[in-house]
Amino acid sequence: MRQSRRGQVDPFIVMDVMEAARRAEASGRHIIHMEVGQPSTPAPAAALKALGQELAEPLGYTVALGLPALREGIAGLYRRWYGVDLDPARVVVTPGSSGAFLLAFAALFDAGDRVAVGEPGYPSYRQILRAMSVEPVGMQTRAENRYQPVPADIPEGVQGVMIASPGNPSGTMLDRQALAALVERTQEIGAALISDEIYHGLDYGQRAVSALELTDDVVVINSFSKYFSMTGWRVGWLVVPPDMVRTMDRLAANMFICAPHASQVAALAALTPESEAEAQANLAVYAENRRMMLERLPAMGFDRIAPPDGAFYVYADVSALTHDSAALAADILDRAGVAVTPGVDFDPVRGAGTLRFSYARSSGDIAEGLDRLARYMAGR
Amino acid sequence: MRQSRRGQVDPFIVMDVMEAARRAEASGRHIIHMEVGQPSTPAPAAALKALGQELAEPLGYTVALGLPALREGIAGLYRRWYGVDLDPARVVVTPGSSGAFLLAFAALFDAGDRVAVGEPGYPSYRQILRAMSVEPVGMQTRAENRYQPVPADIPEGVQGVMIASPGNPSGTMLDRQALAALVERTQEIGAALISDEIYHGLDYGQRAVSALELTDDVVVINSFSKYFSMTGWRVGWLVVPPDMVRTMDRLAANMFICAPHASQVAALAALTPESEAEAQANLAVYAENRRMMLERLPAMGFDRIAPPDGAFYVYADVSALTHDSAALAADILDRAGVAVTPGVDFDPVRGAGTLRFSYARSSGDIAEGLDRLARYMAGR
Repeated sequence: MRQSRRGQVDPFIVMDVMEAARRAEASGRHIIHMEVGQPSTPAPAAALKALGQELAEPLGYTVALGLPALREGIAGLYRRWYGVDLDPARVVVTPGSSGAFLLAFAALFDAGDRVAVGEPGYPSYRQILRAMSVEPVGMQTRAENRYQPVPADIPEGVQGVMIASPGNPSGTMLDRQALAALVERTQEIGAALISDEIYHGLDYGQRAVSALELTDDVVVINSFSKYFSMTGWRVGWLVVPPDMVRTMDRLAANMFICAPHASQVAALAALTPESEAEAQANLAVYAENRRMMLERLPAMGFDRIAPPDGAFYVYADVSALTHDSAALAADILDRAGVAVTPGVDFDPVRGAGTLRFSYARSSGDIAEGLDRLARYMAGR
Repeated sequence: MRQSRRGQVDPFIVMDVMEAARRAEASGRHIIHMEVGQPSTPAPAAALKALGQELAEPLGYTVALGLPALREGIAGLYRRWYGVDLDPARVVVTPGSSGAFLLAFAALFDAGDRVAVGEPGYPSYRQILRAMSVEPVGMQTRAENRYQPVPADIPEGVQGVMIASPGNPSGTMLDRQALAALVERTQEIGAALISDEIYHGLDYGQRAVSALELTDDVVVINSFSKYFSMTGWRVGWLVVPPDMVRTMDRLAANMFICAPHASQVAALAALTPESEAEAQANLAVYAENRRMMLERLPAMGFDRIAPPDGAFYVYADVSALTHDSAALAADILDRAGVAVTPGVDFDPVRGAGTLRFSYARSSGDIAEGLDRLARYMAGR
């Protein structure tokens, strides 16, 4: 059968690591998972309880923009977290942040448009753009800029700029001033600004700044996946300027009909104080994991690491150790029994010299993983 | 903020009907819903029970192609329903059939390609294609061809042909011979054939024929929404040729990560004999509703109707009554208290002279709706 050119997106190299880890486990080995980008904890108990109680109802389609109570609840979160007074009409509930990217890219960009994406960055930005015939233009960000773009990094003539704070894989954040500079520059050049904020809530010192604190002329993307520990539920959201709501409504009705109803019910109950307390308890685990990582990784030789402001990743420059991070990751898995992610998926230019370590698992797992990594590095 | 041209898709006219019906209900009126395209019944009890038991597990991401057991279960359905021996590796689980369309169109077509779609037909085919910079080319199908395309309707130079049997809004089916002729013609011209089979299982005489019974060189789309009464759960699937699986895996991982995990758990349990018995009981209700519709609609003046082979719709040519089906639908809602769908969403050319009646609700509702319609037509 015929296939399109745009459908030929790059494979995830991390899949090779995950498959190798799976084989190792199938053969009886014990593997510590520092490659995964998701919590190991379940959705908040209140979310599961609320869904359990609704299961007897027919969970048909919701309206395209999402359950009204959920959109109100999300608007309330912006008040609580950022002091931003947000009209719930501007909130669009989507099938995960993945659905939010699809919707935003369809609403903002035509075929042939160019969109700047930070490198290193979440690889699916590039691949979804390509699958929609939009050209991603890599911005090679610098360690001294916390692997975040600065205005001078934004290429000429782009129609959009994609930012992420905290970033994946870097975990670094844009502070208010750095974010304001990017807002200003994108407005100057007439490019759409898309702010991926899916790791908000997972920060360890400074609170993450939402682009909505600075401007309404932005498309903000967030999700229940990370802070609320609901990855597999596939509920994300967009906040859009008021004049984009109608476009989003029409596009969402056609492209998705709606986000999964049962998941929306669970997500609504994730916004209760009880659920947020549970999310904060998970955050305390990540904070302890991060403390261990920052104490021990540099000592064992992973000493060129990005400032880990948020999320649950440490991004390390290992170019002094290897020019083939995929091979290094494979060797670490083989000899140390720790799965880590080579940087090639995140940065097509420098990723062969970087690794991403996730600390989303239990503290016991992380401590054991660090022990294994230390022995591995000592034996190199 | 800038907006794309392709994001400016058409509104659904039926939304106006639904909003008017909502307002009428809010003001205290009782409305019979013949506009809805979904069952009013919940997911099968076994599906809900299975999910209830899994809620304690962390429902993280599944692999991109879907839970292996679910893909096997779906392959088993092809054996039971059609006698087709299908490799589960060719099954791709998606976030609803909506996700399946997005994935299929990205994998098959580049920006600027042209895809033939039947008119009348499901409006989102056109809108999703446009949102992905692919040009939909309408095929005006004829009543004498059961509102289904025949090979001569397929325009020159298209890269794809979208078919649906049973069709929405027509409810008509392609028999084996008609389907074979379309398969042959698309292969002759090198176009990709996409077969939307989401109403399979909902047929009232002849069994619906799957394109997979005739060829492996097709992309088949189906879902748990209609026959299994799981619309809001958002679980659909694709069956693709073996050489497309890798492309689909990469695209799905980037575009969706995965279909909702909880919904996949429920869908898996919808494939049990117990659940299918429940689906068959729902089908018996639709069959009785259809019997009432066919007995009474012609007698009251809706006598030019498409052969209602399957799904839960009756599509009526009302061009002798009106040249503005949206106004007629509004009048029926206002004076009869019955919400019906004007044909304009389905057929941009002839839809101003057609209505779609859905009989997906309870038999009591349908009987009452028919009483009201009969009084309305008698009073015209």
